[in-house]
Amino acid sequence: MNEQPIGSWLEELSSSAPAPGGGAAAALEVAMAAALVEMVCNLTIGKPAFAEHEALMTEARDRCAVLRVQATGLAAEDADAFTAVIAAYRLPKEQDDRDGRIQDALVGAAEVPRRTAAAASEVLDLAERIVPGANPNVVSDAAAAAGAARGALQAALVNIDANRASITDESLRAELDDVAESIERDLARADAAFAAARARMGL
Amino acid sequence: MNEQPIGSWLEELSSSAPAPGGGAAAALEVAMAAALVEMVCNLTIGKPAFAEHEALMTEARDRCAVLRVQATGLAAEDADAFTAVIAAYRLPKEQDDRDGRIQDALVGAAEVPRRTAAAASEVLDLAERIVPGANPNVVSDAAAAAGAARGALQAALVNIDANRASITDESLRAELDDVAESIERDLARADAAFAAARARMGL
Repeated sequence: MNEQPIGSWLEELSSSAPAPGGGAAAALEVAMAAALVEMVCNLTIGKPAFAEHEALMTEARDRCAVLRVQATGLAAEDADAFTAVIAAYRLPKEQDDRDGRIQDALVGAAEVPRRTAAAASEVLDLAERIVPGANPNVVSDAAAAAGAARGALQAALVNIDANRASITDESLRAELDDVAESIERDLARADAAFAAARARMGL
Repeated sequence: MNEQPIGSWLEELSSSAPAPGGGAAAALEVAMAAALVEMVCNLTIGKPAFAEHEALMTEARDRCAVLRVQATGLAAEDADAFTAVIAAYRLPKEQDDRDGRIQDALVGAAEVPRRTAAAASEVLDLAERIVPGANPNVVSDAAAAAGAARGALQAALVNIDANRASITDESLRAELDDVAESIERDLARADAAFAAARARMGL
């Protein structure tokens, strides 16, 4: 998605084409959250008043730069995984390995939102950690990052739900239940990070 | 922002440049939410099973197409408003109308997140309304839309907070308090819309 103009990507998102959809939107939300954390760090680093937090700000910024690029890659992977699911369902009903091929595709499709959620969780973690030492003039952008990460977590959660419903392997279903529970905890954590950033604004 | 490649926009968002920041991210979140509602409508319209909801789906889709384009315009307005605030603060301290110019710029800067929140609220409203009649195969994308609109509302809220703190006009401060309260109500409404969409997925 990196090379595509924003307007044309949004146009594709709005269309009836199967991808991009909610999974790609989630990936872009993670990338925005990561970019906002980087911005807060960049506007804190080098200012004598926040010198004691410099090591943390540099660590958070550098990690978020990696997560931002990874997240945009997840949008393409989501489209590929979704296409594979559709192709498997379109196999002739009499084909022996059709059910297995469908299951493999569903497992692959559940993997992308899981990784999107993991990236969102890590960005959220860094947003939480930078709030106490960040330049208060831009801490509102850390709050916005928590909100964007939360949106990504919500989209990842429903995409995991949707895939889980058709997966027959009991142990994988149980694993996805654990992932869903962990996302629910992260949603509460996102609200706490947002509230902490607002409090730091001194309002 | 429409013509800019996603990767380079994210790069700018992450940088220490004053814009784009949280306000532009909020605008893109609204645009994504609107696009996801359009997508759900497009995948519901024309299917005999949902024929009775066709009028609502067409109305929601067409309105969201307008809101999507408006939202991307708000990102540019946010940058302009922010630049005006910085320019006003940089006026010479001895200039007679400096305080008035700063106040005018702050009022302008508070207007953009207010309109972003209003657009997010309207998208959310349409997401809520389409959930009961939408194609259940894509109702997860309506849930993702509610999450993206929520992220936009959170970012708009902290941007209004940040501007309100420096505005001296009491009646405008009171007005912004009302806007903030209305956004808090919309955040709760976004959670309800997300839960309703998940419930509709039958999981």
